[in-house]
Amino acid sequence: MSADAAGQIDQDMYSRPGIVDSDADLLAGIRVLEIGHFVAAPFCSRLLADLGADVIKIEPPIKGDPVRQWGAGKDGHSVWWSVHGRNKRCIGLNLKHPAARQIVLDLVRECDALVENFRPGHLARLGLDDETLRSVRPDLVIAHISGYGQDGPQRDRAAFGVIGEAVGGLRYLTNHPAGETDQPPVRVGVSIGDSIAGLYAAFGVVSGLLKRAAAPRARPASLDIALADSVFSMLEGALPEYGALGIVRQPSGGRIPTAAPTNAYQAADGSWMIVAANSDALFRKLCGVMGRRELPQDARFADNPARVAHVVELDAIISAWTATLEASDLETLLAAADIPATRAYTIEDCARDEQFLFRGMVRDIDDPLIGPVLHPGIVPRVMGREQAIRWAGPDVGHHTDEVLTELLGMAPADIAQLRGEGAF
Amino acid sequence: MSADAAGQIDQDMYSRPGIVDSDADLLAGIRVLEIGHFVAAPFCSRLLADLGADVIKIEPPIKGDPVRQWGAGKDGHSVWWSVHGRNKRCIGLNLKHPAARQIVLDLVRECDALVENFRPGHLARLGLDDETLRSVRPDLVIAHISGYGQDGPQRDRAAFGVIGEAVGGLRYLTNHPAGETDQPPVRVGVSIGDSIAGLYAAFGVVSGLLKRAAAPRARPASLDIALADSVFSMLEGALPEYGALGIVRQPSGGRIPTAAPTNAYQAADGSWMIVAANSDALFRKLCGVMGRRELPQDARFADNPARVAHVVELDAIISAWTATLEASDLETLLAAADIPATRAYTIEDCARDEQFLFRGMVRDIDDPLIGPVLHPGIVPRVMGREQAIRWAGPDVGHHTDEVLTELLGMAPADIAQLRGEGAF
Repeated sequence: MSADAAGQIDQDMYSRPGIVDSDADLLAGIRVLEIGHFVAAPFCSRLLADLGADVIKIEPPIKGDPVRQWGAGKDGHSVWWSVHGRNKRCIGLNLKHPAARQIVLDLVRECDALVENFRPGHLARLGLDDETLRSVRPDLVIAHISGYGQDGPQRDRAAFGVIGEAVGGLRYLTNHPAGETDQPPVRVGVSIGDSIAGLYAAFGVVSGLLKRAAAPRARPASLDIALADSVFSMLEGALPEYGALGIVRQPSGGRIPTAAPTNAYQAADGSWMIVAANSDALFRKLCGVMGRRELPQDARFADNPARVAHVVELDAIISAWTATLEASDLETLLAAADIPATRAYTIEDCARDEQFLFRGMVRDIDDPLIGPVLHPGIVPRVMGREQAIRWAGPDVGHHTDEVLTELLGMAPADIAQLRGEGAF
Repeated sequence: MSADAAGQIDQDMYSRPGIVDSDADLLAGIRVLEIGHFVAAPFCSRLLADLGADVIKIEPPIKGDPVRQWGAGKDGHSVWWSVHGRNKRCIGLNLKHPAARQIVLDLVRECDALVENFRPGHLARLGLDDETLRSVRPDLVIAHISGYGQDGPQRDRAAFGVIGEAVGGLRYLTNHPAGETDQPPVRVGVSIGDSIAGLYAAFGVVSGLLKRAAAPRARPASLDIALADSVFSMLEGALPEYGALGIVRQPSGGRIPTAAPTNAYQAADGSWMIVAANSDALFRKLCGVMGRRELPQDARFADNPARVAHVVELDAIISAWTATLEASDLETLLAAADIPATRAYTIEDCARDEQFLFRGMVRDIDDPLIGPVLHPGIVPRVMGREQAIRWAGPDVGHHTDEVLTELLGMAPADIAQLRGEGAF
């Protein structure tokens, strides 16, 4: 019934939680309501859906989630949506319609968890505060995702991803050292803050559900996941270094501050090779490959502290060598010497990588909305299980009738009337 | 008993799962064995410990986890360790000692999950393959974390974080556009790939435990989390864009490719201001603040597509303005106009941020090993609950006797003898 790794998906397969393999899928039997948009909440619920949860996504009728129009499109559909909306059941629902609040509550009654990323307080203003939600479903786990959190002086600030990443301390570090460039620090290139917040929310939701299973009478969890907190939590030792020693971590460009050589070096064809040869043994091997066996005897490069102190000269020597060879030749030479190295993969390199293909991390999907497309596989991988991509991101409202009939027992005539009024 | 948010931790408080508030902590009652080192597995189990799990970490006696020596140190201890090892019970155990395997199995019998990040196959070579582990604990959830995964042609490759991030497609994107720089793509500045893999593993472990609670007779989950897969899964729409349309996502420096203006602009004091004014309304406000009310009438900047097409000129105009003002003045002006903007926070800015302080995301801890230090708070936040940091990263082997006595019922004389033989 389900799409296999080489995956065709036909239109009839957009549905039915029944196709979840209840042994294979860790979250089979869990139902999650998403009232989300943009990246963080939809990414959270996609991760839950990928592990087998029955995710029901509520979005505005007709237009739907703005991500449906983001980035490159085909046949009027963002191709990102194919992944972002996969494995979910999508309901179009106008939250301003008078019947909407009761429909949400009726759905909540059938759900184990709710994930949302409105501005803090917005759901409460719609009459859907945590207490009201739990009046119909007392053990509901709730995840609120926002830019800065559900409380505090900045809670009402607009949740722009790039701002949250900068407040979380990441943007300052994605730069070359002071004095080496006039260019601005780079954005990571993807919505990393939103995605990390979504992943934390997924971890929190499942932890809340596990608590409920272990202690049914404990207070159900309301989680408060901020994008800025989530990014800030990724800064490894930077905060304790500041707190205990007053050190302000500085950007280090392509390098690692404490070990050399590790950097990206340009090949003759212009592509970038990452080389991590920062132990004495690896450095000796690298010098052998470069035909510079005398370098480890040079006092400037004799051990790691010396190499770190003379890293600019060292990187210049390595760059002069890499510039004479094509990336593919460099990869062959460095692999033969067992030196950790790789091209900086483009998405095309990723799509063709034998390891990703072997592990089902790149999958051919035939999406009914846009045709053939590639999907990333499911993370985390569960060993010895299929972990199917059940369907690609469906059209707005694709599952409205199905869900309202199945979960709420609504009659077709009632659905038709509410649709006529613009509710769906 | 526990450290509060302003928190003192005294030496006697390094211990006792009993101090977990079993109502407040979502993972209270869950016991996890970590046989990990470096970043990914220890980060995973720290996240589990932060939510209340009793994490027992096995590491080599005396030297311990290499992270104990990484980065800036105080009194012989890495200050990062204060955070990386917090809330865990640490056992020194020499896995090469003849008694070690049975001790590990005896501990596994008392645990719900095991997290490890040896090279694939290493644990099996120690006689601790999944099947053997489950012979003593049939419902054990196991998370294997590695650079490239537990199978496939690249599984034995050394798991260097910078290599995995490059193979995952992230490094290519953390760069300025081709032609705008000769410098290499930057490293994100922290071990982002390891941390994301650790977070995925934590999500997987709790999902496996939830499955066990819901379906006790289902096969227990063995999870296979690869650093490269984890990074690759963060690339939002890049893979479907390539698969459906042949587009190879390119680096965009400080910008967002599809919306302008959004970039980092340098202030008079040299610091970088992130400004996200990419809707027509926000752009008009920004032009007002800059005293350039004519710009929105300029055909080059009249709407978002026009601004994207002329982004180099537009960014030059904005940069010329920001260069005349200090960052603090820019922040005041832009905030007054309700334009999303912020300095790129240094770790010092983070440590002083009123929102982080309000939310307990920056906490004063008095670590018995290194003295006063700052810790990041616990993510995800659980609303209305204390979420204490119970203790800072303890010294190697701090809990060896306690754990062996409490969980294995070993007699002090037996512990002493094994210690004499170098087992602990």
